[in-house]
Amino acid sequence: MCHHCVVESVKRRMLSRRDVFRTGAAGVAAAAVGAAATAASAPPALAAGVAKLQDMTHELHHDFPTYFGEPQFDYEQKFSFDKNGFNLGIMTVNEHTGTHLDAPLHFSKDGQAVNEVPIENLVVPLAIIDIREKAAGDADAQVTPDDVKAWIAKNGPLPEKCCVAMNSGWDRHAASDKFRNVGADQKMHFPGFHVEATKMLMEESSAVGMAVDTLSLDFGPSGDFATHYAWLPTNRWGLECIANLDRLPAKGATLVVGAPKHRGGSGGPCRVIAMM
Amino acid sequence: MCHHCVVESVKRRMLSRRDVFRTGAAGVAAAAVGAAATAASAPPALAAGVAKLQDMTHELHHDFPTYFGEPQFDYEQKFSFDKNGFNLGIMTVNEHTGTHLDAPLHFSKDGQAVNEVPIENLVVPLAIIDIREKAAGDADAQVTPDDVKAWIAKNGPLPEKCCVAMNSGWDRHAASDKFRNVGADQKMHFPGFHVEATKMLMEESSAVGMAVDTLSLDFGPSGDFATHYAWLPTNRWGLECIANLDRLPAKGATLVVGAPKHRGGSGGPCRVIAMM
Repeated sequence: MCHHCVVESVKRRMLSRRDVFRTGAAGVAAAAVGAAATAASAPPALAAGVAKLQDMTHELHHDFPTYFGEPQFDYEQKFSFDKNGFNLGIMTVNEHTGTHLDAPLHFSKDGQAVNEVPIENLVVPLAIIDIREKAAGDADAQVTPDDVKAWIAKNGPLPEKCCVAMNSGWDRHAASDKFRNVGADQKMHFPGFHVEATKMLMEESSAVGMAVDTLSLDFGPSGDFATHYAWLPTNRWGLECIANLDRLPAKGATLVVGAPKHRGGSGGPCRVIAMM
Repeated sequence: MCHHCVVESVKRRMLSRRDVFRTGAAGVAAAAVGAAATAASAPPALAAGVAKLQDMTHELHHDFPTYFGEPQFDYEQKFSFDKNGFNLGIMTVNEHTGTHLDAPLHFSKDGQAVNEVPIENLVVPLAIIDIREKAAGDADAQVTPDDVKAWIAKNGPLPEKCCVAMNSGWDRHAASDKFRNVGADQKMHFPGFHVEATKMLMEESSAVGMAVDTLSLDFGPSGDFATHYAWLPTNRWGLECIANLDRLPAKGATLVVGAPKHRGGSGGPCRVIAMM
């Protein structure tokens, strides 16, 4: 049966079932048909135990801003529905593009590759440190030990094996030059984690991950990648270019990091989903 | 501070904190240091409300078997830790490689692209139909309407907006030629969903996704992609090459599909995680 015949056959069957619905002769079957017919447009039904879902992922495309300043995502349409009966493309993508994971191996000689990060470290409680106010006045703002202490004073201890995220409000700049924010000094200017806050998290918490809504765990003008070099070699991971942190509370969400699983990879674009 | 200095500085600080631990002078701080020092090796602590996590994703690499029979994943190491101080690679990958999503657009003219699938359709209850016994005796076995009926008779109605998965036991062949299983007739032979079962799911359930542990939603010798053409154009998705279905119960798990989010894509490699 060709695909057109299949589609037509399905349509015929669904219409015949709807006739049943109209005559009121088979309520149960009719309800099922109704559900099937509207599957795509029905209001969302969440999985058991999940009250809210939030996508934390930027859409990836050729012009998504990058650390190095050049496009890092290419898409070649290899087959198309009109010509071939199906759509299929080939992606060429730098691992560190869009909303993506820095695996420990990114800044270490023998840390975990992206396929080696334990699955238990990819589904973790999320603690969000909000530095939007100071970042609005200073693009070089960093998460400091005082910011971590203030979070704890307000929210209690950091959750076990959590991800600590910086909300600097920078995700709203992802479509403009402000995301990289290159200054007259030719350096980038965006917020990140100060290495002293990084060390504090390493020493005084069991956090396994760190997330930023900017292009780098280190703030823009960093020349030494101090935070990368402190954090990643301890088999903790980083998430860069996370989106929508302002839609979640400071604590209480669970982050699911849909990291790629290619052998030996240093990271890669992720689907990141938060659940409440 | 160079990265070596940062690492050394962190080590010194951790040692000094451990001295505190040895003297017993600061129990609370010491416990925190202990937690930090063992973060990578501690037994997994799961996020609140999660009793079990299961990775459903095959490791992706150059030789992972493909539908078309040629390698579809290339990795170029662009920077290396030894030479450059960090690791970074560039991937070239066919969207339909490894454990991956078929977005509705894969077999339709204007169905949802991978970036358009609603997030609520990516975190869904999982129903697993076990056809391992018949697939062991017949590589061309398919999930039939009777298999769906038998599942419902045993487990009750299919969950709302679920993913229905076929467990044919085929994931254990992913490292051998048996995964594609090309016969003397030059056709592939592996299990899939029969189009009549597909139509039944469309008409009598609200399922939004379909998963197989083989290379295609349609069984290997299919010449017409009847299941693809029936299912995907209705804005339902497919998952191919899912792993580890035998580690989950027939119902009760929630599937999180970490689909990529590139604009206009027909699908792509996914991190798929099940939660109990």
